Amino acid sequence: MKTLRSHLAGRWHEADRDFQTLINPSTEEPLARASSSGADFALALLYARERGGPNLRTLTFAKRGEILKALGKRFRDHRDELMALSRAVNGTTESDGAFDVDGAGGALAFYGGLGLELGLARVLADGRGAQLGKSESFWSAHALVPRNGVAVQINAFNFPAWGFAEKFACSFLAGMPAIAKPATATASVTERMVEIAGESGLLPEGALQLIVGATGDLLDKLEPQDVVAFTGSAATAQALRSRPAVAAASARWNVEADSLNAAVLAPDAVAGTPTFDRFIKDVAKEMSQKAGQKCTAVRRILVPRELEEAATDALVARLSKVVTGDPSDPRVTMGPLATAGQLRDALDGIAELLATAQLILGTGGRAHGVGVEPGQGYFLTPTLLRTEYPFERTPIHWREVFGPVATILPYSGAPAEAARLIGLGGGALVSSLYSDDVKWLSELLGRAGAFQGRVYIGSFASEGFGSGAALPQSLHGGPGRAGGGEELGGLAGLRLYQQRVALQGSRELVEALVD
Amino acid sequence: MKTLRSHLAGRWHEADRDFQTLINPSTEEPLARASSSGADFALALLYARERGGPNLRTLTFAKRGEILKALGKRFRDHRDELMALSRAVNGTTESDGAFDVDGAGGALAFYGGLGLELGLARVLADGRGAQLGKSESFWSAHALVPRNGVAVQINAFNFPAWGFAEKFACSFLAGMPAIAKPATATASVTERMVEIAGESGLLPEGALQLIVGATGDLLDKLEPQDVVAFTGSAATAQALRSRPAVAAASARWNVEADSLNAAVLAPDAVAGTPTFDRFIKDVAKEMSQKAGQKCTAVRRILVPRELEEAATDALVARLSKVVTGDPSDPRVTMGPLATAGQLRDALDGIAELLATAQLILGTGGRAHGVGVEPGQGYFLTPTLLRTEYPFERTPIHWREVFGPVATILPYSGAPAEAARLIGLGGGALVSSLYSDDVKWLSELLGRAGAFQGRVYIGSFASEGFGSGAALPQSLHGGPGRAGGGEELGGLAGLRLYQQRVALQGSRELVEALVD
Repeated sequence: MKTLRSHLAGRWHEADRDFQTLINPSTEEPLARASSSGADFALALLYARERGGPNLRTLTFAKRGEILKALGKRFRDHRDELMALSRAVNGTTESDGAFDVDGAGGALAFYGGLGLELGLARVLADGRGAQLGKSESFWSAHALVPRNGVAVQINAFNFPAWGFAEKFACSFLAGMPAIAKPATATASVTERMVEIAGESGLLPEGALQLIVGATGDLLDKLEPQDVVAFTGSAATAQALRSRPAVAAASARWNVEADSLNAAVLAPDAVAGTPTFDRFIKDVAKEMSQKAGQKCTAVRRILVPRELEEAATDALVARLSKVVTGDPSDPRVTMGPLATAGQLRDALDGIAELLATAQLILGTGGRAHGVGVEPGQGYFLTPTLLRTEYPFERTPIHWREVFGPVATILPYSGAPAEAARLIGLGGGALVSSLYSDDVKWLSELLGRAGAFQGRVYIGSFASEGFGSGAALPQSLHGGPGRAGGGEELGGLAGLRLYQQRVALQGSRELVEALVD
Repeated sequence: MKTLRSHLAGRWHEADRDFQTLINPSTEEPLARASSSGADFALALLYARERGGPNLRTLTFAKRGEILKALGKRFRDHRDELMALSRAVNGTTESDGAFDVDGAGGALAFYGGLGLELGLARVLADGRGAQLGKSESFWSAHALVPRNGVAVQINAFNFPAWGFAEKFACSFLAGMPAIAKPATATASVTERMVEIAGESGLLPEGALQLIVGATGDLLDKLEPQDVVAFTGSAATAQALRSRPAVAAASARWNVEADSLNAAVLAPDAVAGTPTFDRFIKDVAKEMSQKAGQKCTAVRRILVPRELEEAATDALVARLSKVVTGDPSDPRVTMGPLATAGQLRDALDGIAELLATAQLILGTGGRAHGVGVEPGQGYFLTPTLLRTEYPFERTPIHWREVFGPVATILPYSGAPAEAARLIGLGGGALVSSLYSDDVKWLSELLGRAGAFQGRVYIGSFASEGFGSGAALPQSLHGGPGRAGGGEELGGLAGLRLYQQRVALQGSRELVEALVD
């Protein structure tokens, strides 16, 4: 069995004990083993701070951008290999694998392009300058400079390629060295990407390190100039941050947690309209893509009471066509959950929801997968619930079932009611609104805008890819239970890795320093 | 003795027990008593969320700006009264009181003006839009909307007027209701300001509440849409945030902590140059203004070895002219520390620094104050230290003595050495650099920019007010031990109270919603 390795302080580190086994979630075959035992994290941090940081900070934005673009191309050159790794370890279908792997290349290409646009600068001006005194001899302007520490990037199991790439693209372009830490369960994809990056010779020394396995005492050794970009459960983030040594280190944290994202059908989008059809198509996709194991997946489906029957019928019809099984089988359109633990947790979650909801589609139990022996694999078929009590404080609003599972919440159609339901989720990454009525959209945005990081509008005129894609141009993150973080969103995605500095002095001096 | 009151849920609340006494720090006379005992914080939060928030969100930026400007004028109308309160309870001289009271009016006027410029909008566009798909039918733009909770604003004892006003100006203009919580020791100034605001009838119902005394269980009742803006010690902030109920609430926090700000003399600014003179004048002012009880005060004075003698002599000469005593006495140019506890802590701190530094000016002990009976008042004269070991990890770099106390650190004059010394402080609100050499400034900024929120440049051509003033146009806040927060800085000062939302849909729809 292959042993995955970490890449720290310029060399590959292979552990000799405390292994965790990576499993094919369709066949339950063991694929590889992983451990960070024996890794010297203090040295890794020093290497990033003393080599990676200074090396990166000497590069212009254009040079950093050029490297990112070239790296994205290398990953595209190895697409088949990465897709195969993803299929094996993450149970992804062709399109799910592409969502992750091509998404990674897309993020690198996008930030590469931004770097080229920024040109020969190393310091980014932020906003316009302002006169502070009676003349230009007292002037202020703001600059964004790279933080002088290391960016520790902790990712979730569901996007081993994209999660790594989108975080790395931002920190690299900002000028900070990164230590990537993928979730162990699917780390073979990220490990191969870091290998490809190494083989490419594109990256300056110390700009990227990799931990496969546990982070050990890494977080306890952080310093104030460091950054932690964490994607995973809010509870884990909270527990990590509250550790006294971590809290005392006062590194900057960004947390991207899961959330109870809502899709909202408006009363104007009646059955038969293109917007209604788009709603059905999108919701079915956002439930079943990557077997619902996306932080942006739809969990709560808000439907006006008078459209409920039509919407439910259409959703059931569409979801019933999904073929769950081993993605190696050409008939299969949805893969398994990623791990045995994930399946267990999803089944527990469905049971919890069923206390105040009923089953419309699905069994609430483990399913047989097409293309594998009976009893093998962590399969769950699309599961649609409906609650009678949408306005009560029930688990519907806080228990995220991380699988192809969502609940229909009937409501009146009024924006105020939809806003109240959205708000009960405590903050989300994205809400998707399906309407062609600007007034309805505007009222809902006014009431519920503050409860999410992104609003996706499905309408007659909109031709988006669905609400699930976290595109590099748009903010990814959300308030409250979604973690309160901000990633991506164009240049704003660099902010996490930058210090904003006000410069005060004569206009001439200040402008000489910002340029 | 006057009993200070809180203003919660639309009425004044007077406690009947658990009082803390406010003391005149020059004469040790008791002035007033304060307690929040019996206050219903759950009701206050509800009132802010259900009344204040909705009321504020219906106002345009222009209207909010108009109100802020008018409120600033009211405070200016009551300037004499507020200055007298400040002198009595905070021991401020005329110019120290003006720094606080006029600073408050200035912040309100500045943000009022910004509001007027923003005009009739309620939603702020953030950056330019971007095309996501092959056509404009998939477009993205970002909007900033007010968070739907309450802003709890906890301030330090040293700026009872400005601290309250700068925070309130930002949250109010952003569209969030505030609960102001001044430090109890000097709360009489803030209490009177809230009274004036109430008498003015300018503010919408629920937009501003006041807690005088302890916050009790307030923070445990926060929700994800709430914001805490905290100014005070990093340790207190950390302790508050780590409380399980507070951590679980996942409100957004901004922390403004004290820091070991450095003033750096460059080798080109030799004795006799205007820049050298400016350095001496500024450092003496930043040490003695408000008796050094400013989070932006200079604590570490970096001087090239060959200029050390000249700089030390000039500083000693200037600081020796300071007359410490009761600010009611016209001879006095520097007042007392604010409380007995502050004096005790400052004396302890000097003793700690003296383990690796020697005394150049001052006694290291409590001083007699001009204009009061011997033995009365919390006086400390300007205290200048020098260390032989600037590059060692000694308390010089982490023990902030919150009084008129600073230490000279001799260095070579090289930017790399200055940057290393700045960095040893672990992050600061501001560094002030005195040079006319753009290359030297640029190199130092490149190496140490990330270690502070603001860089103040003293030069022949710059005519600033000194590094201590946190002007509304410039970022106030700093990384690491300075708390990692961001306040002020023009429109950026509203960000804490806003949610950034990505809107995705057809260009036409998105632009209709952002405008």
